[in-house]
Amino acid sequence: MNERVSAIPPGGRIGILGGGQLGRMLALAAANLGLTCHIYCPDADLPAGQVSAAVTRAAYDDAEALAAFAATVDVVTYEFENVPAETARILARHAPVRPGALALATSQDRLAEKSFLAAQGIATAPFAAVDTLNDLEEALARFGVPAILKTRRMGYDGKGQVKIDNLAGAGEAFAAMKGAPAILEGFVPFEREISVVAARGLDGAVAAYDPVENVHRHHILHQTFAPATLDKAVADQARAIAETILTRLDYAGVIGVEMFLMPEGSSGPRLLVNEMAPRVHNSGHWTQNACTVSQFEQHIRAICGWPLGDPARHSDAIMTNLIGDDVKDWQALAAEPATGVHLYGKSEARPGRKMGHVTRIYPRGTRP
Amino acid sequence: MNERVSAIPPGGRIGILGGGQLGRMLALAAANLGLTCHIYCPDADLPAGQVSAAVTRAAYDDAEALAAFAATVDVVTYEFENVPAETARILARHAPVRPGALALATSQDRLAEKSFLAAQGIATAPFAAVDTLNDLEEALARFGVPAILKTRRMGYDGKGQVKIDNLAGAGEAFAAMKGAPAILEGFVPFEREISVVAARGLDGAVAAYDPVENVHRHHILHQTFAPATLDKAVADQARAIAETILTRLDYAGVIGVEMFLMPEGSSGPRLLVNEMAPRVHNSGHWTQNACTVSQFEQHIRAICGWPLGDPARHSDAIMTNLIGDDVKDWQALAAEPATGVHLYGKSEARPGRKMGHVTRIYPRGTRP
Repeated sequence: MNERVSAIPPGGRIGILGGGQLGRMLALAAANLGLTCHIYCPDADLPAGQVSAAVTRAAYDDAEALAAFAATVDVVTYEFENVPAETARILARHAPVRPGALALATSQDRLAEKSFLAAQGIATAPFAAVDTLNDLEEALARFGVPAILKTRRMGYDGKGQVKIDNLAGAGEAFAAMKGAPAILEGFVPFEREISVVAARGLDGAVAAYDPVENVHRHHILHQTFAPATLDKAVADQARAIAETILTRLDYAGVIGVEMFLMPEGSSGPRLLVNEMAPRVHNSGHWTQNACTVSQFEQHIRAICGWPLGDPARHSDAIMTNLIGDDVKDWQALAAEPATGVHLYGKSEARPGRKMGHVTRIYPRGTRP
Repeated sequence: MNERVSAIPPGGRIGILGGGQLGRMLALAAANLGLTCHIYCPDADLPAGQVSAAVTRAAYDDAEALAAFAATVDVVTYEFENVPAETARILARHAPVRPGALALATSQDRLAEKSFLAAQGIATAPFAAVDTLNDLEEALARFGVPAILKTRRMGYDGKGQVKIDNLAGAGEAFAAMKGAPAILEGFVPFEREISVVAARGLDGAVAAYDPVENVHRHHILHQTFAPATLDKAVADQARAIAETILTRLDYAGVIGVEMFLMPEGSSGPRLLVNEMAPRVHNSGHWTQNACTVSQFEQHIRAICGWPLGDPARHSDAIMTNLIGDDVKDWQALAAEPATGVHLYGKSEARPGRKMGHVTRIYPRGTRP
């Protein structure tokens, strides 16, 4: 298929659900292409609203506001994967929603996600649905400990999950789910976490950025190293996994796919998919300073039916998130050579809150 | 001096006079640093307004609107050099105006500009004030023909100037000035036009991007080649000229200095300054894709008292303006590898109107 003829031209308007830093950076990228944005968000502190032509402040279940919003835009996208299905349905009556309903449904539910991956022959940690304590005990007996019990929906940055270190802890862990449908994931002794940020256009073309390596602190992304240090075969496999996911979901836009790299010589596949996010991804922020077309512009291009941009890396990069009070160092960071500083315009630096990031670049092949 | 303590922190607001593409790209760069913008402009089609937190649509001589605007911002800057002196005075009562009154007065008037340069020992084409036909005839007798008669104020992109090819043409050329104060500039047989885009911070630090070479079509910039192909001594001299200008004007912000490169072996200096623009400059657009900190971010940093960013070039670049209908090629341009596409959100592609630009990047040392 080739839908280029139906591209949204310069002057078009993009609707974005969510007004945080991802929406903000999407809006800035859209502006660079001559497109304007309309932000839809219930929050008062609205980083994306400061740089957008229009803002609707309303709840995600306000059918009337959603319809009015969607009627003003040429396409709707979102900065977070937990868009309610009913919200997406209302919007889709007025404008295309990209990525589409299948991508949302699959990535919102850890069980649906892992089942989808398994159906494509893509390896994951062992998993089992947990609706009852009995389900949990049976799965623990199969996977052993440690294992991780997670809510199927609405978890991020380590929220909604409990590590189970011994079989006696099953009852307490199950209670912590408070009756929410859950999934047990077997423990995976991975060596490193990598991710691939990739895009698929309306014409079916796929463009993947180089796989990167991620280091977390307190369950929040701390640093991304671009590129990851990987054998070429593993890097190619990581890209191929992302491409399979994009194609099987008939996807439009950017996706972030997190993977576990298993130690060399371990039995089974080297790469297990941990999770996927149907949106621009924190581990792709480095592309702003090290590629000609950032992940944000790539997403805008993809959902608007433009040709995908070149994902080639002109520089190596290390991206570091500024969490909470980290942002107080802005003057020292701004004085560093070869460093891109990106601040999100949030009014209050609460602990754990992503306030900005810095990307240090290095000539290709020289990053520390 | 070190005024870093008085930096405008993230969350601060910048006032920008002018709502065109330069204001727009300044606003996008400010947003990247967590700063917001308020655009002041009399026009209806407002590329900068689409990406700014606030807009005041009023005339540049509306004292009340100017005062109300300036009261809402931490600093005022502008995207064009023809800000009336009285406008700057009104604004300066409420917020610092950067670059300041001296830079404006000097660059608004071709005679003041060339006199300033001469006083610093910086070479220019020969020039003489022309207030009467007699002034013109005397100057023509000294400089010979061809020579160029220009209005002292308000000229850009070749407007307000007449080439004089023979002495008999003096009367007609003088009449074309319609009584406006003018300046005669002797013809300079230059080899190429280069420019330096440089910045000075509130702390007096100076950072210059690499000198670039510019090619014009119909008196409008067509392409910029970064870096210019120059002997190191000439490139260093070009940077030194820019630094002298910035320092002697006690400047804050980015400046664009256009220079003529004289043929090797010609008598006199190799570099003559043609003109300077106290603002971000079309010949600096390449920095968006080939440097970590673009000229737009650099200007914002400078006027806000932030440390200047690293002007190092990670890639070579060729910037091409999209004039009028050139912008209709956006889909083909967007499909090119290693190409940054920048569109200005203007609603109508009139002939001669700058609608966007593309920057093609190349690994350092490899540009064609």
